[in-house]
Amino acid sequence: MKAIVKKIGQKGVFVKDTDFIENLGVTIRTLYTGVCGTDREIANDALPFIRAENGNELIIGHEAIGIVEDPGDSDQFKKGDLVVPMVRRPGKCQLCKIGHQDYCIDGDFVEAGIRGKNGFMREKFRDDEKFLLKVKDKEIQEIGVLTEPTKNVMKIMETFKFLSSRVPWYCGDSTFSCKNLYIYGTGSEALLISFVFSTLGFNIFLVNRHPVSDKIQSIINGIGASFLDSSSEDYENKLSRNRPDVIIDAVGSSEILRKSVEKINNNGIIILFGTSGQLMEKNEDITGYIVDKNISIAGSVDGSKENYREAIEFISSNKNRFPFKDLITGIGSPENIDKIAKKDKDEIKYIIKW
Amino acid sequence: MKAIVKKIGQKGVFVKDTDFIENLGVTIRTLYTGVCGTDREIANDALPFIRAENGNELIIGHEAIGIVEDPGDSDQFKKGDLVVPMVRRPGKCQLCKIGHQDYCIDGDFVEAGIRGKNGFMREKFRDDEKFLLKVKDKEIQEIGVLTEPTKNVMKIMETFKFLSSRVPWYCGDSTFSCKNLYIYGTGSEALLISFVFSTLGFNIFLVNRHPVSDKIQSIINGIGASFLDSSSEDYENKLSRNRPDVIIDAVGSSEILRKSVEKINNNGIIILFGTSGQLMEKNEDITGYIVDKNISIAGSVDGSKENYREAIEFISSNKNRFPFKDLITGIGSPENIDKIAKKDKDEIKYIIKW
Amino acid sequence: MKAIVKKIGQKGVFVKDTDFIENLGVTIRTLYTGVCGTDREIANDALPFIRAENGNELIIGHEAIGIVEDPGDSDQFKKGDLVVPMVRRPGKCQLCKIGHQDYCIDGDFVEAGIRGKNGFMREKFRDDEKFLLKVKDKEIQEIGVLTEPTKNVMKIMETFKFLSSRVPWYCGDSTFSCKNLYIYGTGSEALLISFVFSTLGFNIFLVNRHPVSDKIQSIINGIGASFLDSSSEDYENKLSRNRPDVIIDAVGSSEILRKSVEKINNNGIIILFGTSGQLMEKNEDITGYIVDKNISIAGSVDGSKENYREAIEFISSNKNRFPFKDLITGIGSPENIDKIAKKDKDEIKYIIKW
Amino acid sequence: MKAIVKKIGQKGVFVKDTDFIENLGVTIRTLYTGVCGTDREIANDALPFIRAENGNELIIGHEAIGIVEDPGDSDQFKKGDLVVPMVRRPGKCQLCKIGHQDYCIDGDFVEAGIRGKNGFMREKFRDDEKFLLKVKDKEIQEIGVLTEPTKNVMKIMETFKFLSSRVPWYCGDSTFSCKNLYIYGTGSEALLISFVFSTLGFNIFLVNRHPVSDKIQSIINGIGASFLDSSSEDYENKLSRNRPDVIIDAVGSSEILRKSVEKINNNGIIILFGTSGQLMEKNEDITGYIVDKNISIAGSVDGSKENYREAIEFISSNKNRFPFKDLITGIGSPENIDKIAKKDKDEIKYIIKW
Repeated sequence: MKAIVKKIGQKGVFVKDTDFIENLGVTIRTLYTGVCGTDREIANDALPFIRAENGNELIIGHEAIGIVEDPGDSDQFKKGDLVVPMVRRPGKCQLCKIGHQDYCIDGDFVEAGIRGKNGFMREKFRDDEKFLLKVKDKEIQEIGVLTEPTKNVMKIMETFKFLSSRVPWYCGDSTFSCKNLYIYGTGSEALLISFVFSTLGFNIFLVNRHPVSDKIQSIINGIGASFLDSSSEDYENKLSRNRPDVIIDAVGSSEILRKSVEKINNNGIIILFGTSGQLMEKNEDITGYIVDKNISIAGSVDGSKENYREAIEFISSNKNRFPFKDLITGIGSPENIDKIAKKDKDEIKYIIKW
Repeated sequence: MKAIVKKIGQKGVFVKDTDFIENLGVTIRTLYTGVCGTDREIANDALPFIRAENGNELIIGHEAIGIVEDPGDSDQFKKGDLVVPMVRRPGKCQLCKIGHQDYCIDGDFVEAGIRGKNGFMREKFRDDEKFLLKVKDKEIQEIGVLTEPTKNVMKIMETFKFLSSRVPWYCGDSTFSCKNLYIYGTGSEALLISFVFSTLGFNIFLVNRHPVSDKIQSIINGIGASFLDSSSEDYENKLSRNRPDVIIDAVGSSEILRKSVEKINNNGIIILFGTSGQLMEKNEDITGYIVDKNISIAGSVDGSKENYREAIEFISSNKNRFPFKDLITGIGSPENIDKIAKKDKDEIKYIIKW
Repeated sequence: MKAIVKKIGQKGVFVKDTDFIENLGVTIRTLYTGVCGTDREIANDALPFIRAENGNELIIGHEAIGIVEDPGDSDQFKKGDLVVPMVRRPGKCQLCKIGHQDYCIDGDFVEAGIRGKNGFMREKFRDDEKFLLKVKDKEIQEIGVLTEPTKNVMKIMETFKFLSSRVPWYCGDSTFSCKNLYIYGTGSEALLISFVFSTLGFNIFLVNRHPVSDKIQSIINGIGASFLDSSSEDYENKLSRNRPDVIIDAVGSSEILRKSVEKINNNGIIILFGTSGQLMEKNEDITGYIVDKNISIAGSVDGSKENYREAIEFISSNKNRFPFKDLITGIGSPENIDKIAKKDKDEIKYIIKW
Repeated sequence: MKAIVKKIGQKGVFVKDTDFIENLGVTIRTLYTGVCGTDREIANDALPFIRAENGNELIIGHEAIGIVEDPGDSDQFKKGDLVVPMVRRPGKCQLCKIGHQDYCIDGDFVEAGIRGKNGFMREKFRDDEKFLLKVKDKEIQEIGVLTEPTKNVMKIMETFKFLSSRVPWYCGDSTFSCKNLYIYGTGSEALLISFVFSTLGFNIFLVNRHPVSDKIQSIINGIGASFLDSSSEDYENKLSRNRPDVIIDAVGSSEILRKSVEKINNNGIIILFGTSGQLMEKNEDITGYIVDKNISIAGSVDGSKENYREAIEFISSNKNRFPFKDLITGIGSPENIDKIAKKDKDEIKYIIKW
């Protein structure tokens, strides 16, 4: 059985013939696996916390959709069911016990394809039914591979709803129609954020430090949002005319955080999701802004099973409304191993068909 | 009528004989006014947003307690009532309209003694009854001058309660007895924070970059908290043994924020109140920590009338339990104008007796 | 211009030729108006709080969708836009001022077609742009008439989300898959509730005191919910095997409330929306259950502009997923005045085409 | 060792010489135990859910304060510490696991002195340190026996704070000074509620169906609240002039609930704590009011360890402010067994000194 494997401490990833190590659970035939920044970091030996399940090899891959081949003892699943597996598996802390390993207190969890558990980039995998979600809508067999990145957006939404309840912060007519949402980034995660948040009625701006491809520009236009190139001359003007009320960062940069707290309106909300680790370009105090404007900031990582369920709901309900298919700019075979390490020009999301 | 006045754009502050400019409202004879960092900045020409009410002179002072001399048309107040006046006065935004000028959206407010409104460092002042709070407990005539800084703590508490409801974050027995609270700073505001938060059952640590006076050490010991000198050799060890779950910063430093996100436990809560503007010592990305640990951060400025009311309640109920009196390390006369600009060694809070 | 009119204090409703009384605003040509229980009560002289806008005649109708004929001075709307008008218009209280006339404190509001303001059962009406919502999706021109009843469901959802945050009440895997939701009623409002709440992953049961038509049974089956006839012999057994965790009442009966508090699980949530005024059949104390089980109960009336917006979003996103069209069991002309007063057998929703 | 014992199924309670059945834990010498309605019901064979720990005898008593005689293996407690024991002990459900047995999902808990666990009406008892709370303030050795009923008030407060966050419900100046709180009942629990809620700045009214003793009237006056006799002629007038915004019921009556939903203002909050089981006097539909006014109702039973901690904090901080001592109208010896079954005229709280 083919799998894409990382030897810990060794360069690159490779295809290898493997056996199951799991004896029990539901057996799933993998349909598609998505490739994301974390996989790229693994392929490029840049993810410090990678950890094998046993021995020194890890099957990678954490974004997947598959089809039940053998339900084993499961009552919930039957052969032919479309399913999405969860990435993070609970430890023993108080929040893990109530289904919130996404808020794990002590870090004692495993993540499929990343740390301590083999992932889904293999022809088949076995899993405990409690970490599988059924996808009833067979029409989303392909775009359903976007469930995993979309569940992150659902937790971001949950975090936004929480922070927005700090004060009656909405417009005078109870809506968000007078509020500006800035999304930093224009990759697949940022675009999924723009899809989900466009259902809340914000004026949405996606921002990047360079122009975007026509395809991305067209996706952004299609949902009624605007693109802003922060390297362009008129960026500051545009920003001043439409100061952000909410900022969601899908990049991961202290520089973006610095500028965000400076530019955001009073009572502004900033949600951080990206982790690229960019430094500040200018050493400026940011605490004064946070205090004087009553700014609320929250990091959001991973998502709960409920967030996966919401993601499937969202993709299924909106499959004709948002161009999920356009996010998938490439479909390759497992053997095409170079595509994991290196992002194509104008790629949004590359997925592997098994 | 004596007042302490700042001429905008001119060095220092001075005592001047003044008249009322307010014709209506409750007339209050000032008992005490507190001197805080903002007053010091004014005296040292370091507060950029200072603004006169009319002309180019501003009566300073925003921490006060006084006694009603003439209630005017007020039904609520009578001669002899002890009262505390509010600093910030509402503008026309949605949050100002519902009593939350502390969350003012558009910045269109005035602040007594700071921007656009004469303050309380004068023998008498007149005010609208709706910006006055009655102090029923005559025993707190002197320490009641601490109401204004304590109302900030009440908003910090409100902010903490909000952020702590993000996930069931308390200990397994429903209390906070297993959680560590770090307070950065050891001045009057930090000590008031320690008094208020000690009623929640945290393990409390106050931190500064230098040793503290015996008096401050003794106040800290008295409430069962610990002092940590972050310049000492064993600081890192102590920190590692008792990693923070909640951090409240009363200093205002991006460096403290940088270290806080690095050291805080998962799901940690950081509340920023200080605004001294210190820069980062080391340019390090902080967003990764915020994301991976689901950290929540909120700025908190000023406080609502309800926060003033809670502050009076707190001081009155706890006057024998917490050493409020020990926070007042000096009482001077209005003429002692040098004391406004310069903090004494080992001073915690200096107040003026009118 | 034809309108359906109620003469206050006189029997029935009638068609009458009328003129605009509004001089300003957006002019809308009515496409459809829905008929609901309130309209029936008006037609049957059973609504005590009915009030004319001026004189003693009221144009009725509060569920409508129309098309902009003349935008007047509006920047937001242009000729040809599909729009839904709001029913309740704000008074001067604190909550009305922040767009929450649905939580009006002092009752000083008007409601189109019900109290103090002419309604939408007329060929054309004029309205202030701020009380109109744009419907971008032209495919929901007909089912868009369900926006008004669906906005009630959105407020019910908001109320549910609020009450469900009292304790970490979800299942051990963070979802609601182990929780039973009972909806009392099987009319159009109850069915809309079942559509919306089926997106949360509950086990849903709709309950009525009599069997339902095949059509209703088929709608219920279609969303994966179950119907329970509370007059049937095995009802008690079924209830005992699947005790409710959440109850939403679309009927309005103290008897249902009495039984709900008796049967619901600990920490149960009850949301009341119906107002039919049925009495208790058995005088039994209900407070003991509410206390011992920590039950939370909330009434929910009307909805905010945000709830209307969410309703349009929901109908548009789910137009192919939920059988909104099947809820409209009859379309008649304005002249067919008898249909307003009397519900047809097996009718779910009757609408008027203008 | 003397204990007060109930033989299940047999009339009355009696003093009996007993031995420990607990081998481990902290040994506590009982100082005082309070007698409450539940104890009276037990003594009068009127508590259906009473259950022995083993055999068919139960040591009763659940309100206690004692002194550590032998800390056993405990690190937290030492000989001489003043402690209060908790009543309800967790089962295995999700909420019990996170310290919220007060919200137990499945009812699988025990309660000392009530169901499944021997109580504190004995000279000494042994307990697990995790169910004991330290009382640092030695001055509240006697009134500390009120901790258990006060912890119920702390949960009521927690419930109020939760429900009051449904909408920005406070007065236009952010306080509750314009809001009326009605407390039904004038017994010890109602008076403790009035103490705690008087710190929130409400206009408080205590209501009973008969006049109260001079002592109770004087306690009510002392905290600035008013007493209303609902059997008096001018009650309806007074009620109409000061309609309730918040109602806390310490009685337990469907009749009170019926009248509450009728009289309360829009967005009103009702918290039910009493469980006396009184029926409605008039069969009237109550759901209409709950819906039209957006009323929120919550039952509140028991309290968490955090609520006990808050209760001790409250009693200690306010020992000189509120007349806790006046609530204790009688102190008797264990042998005075008749006093458990029968309430004295004008009794507020009777306690036993061990």
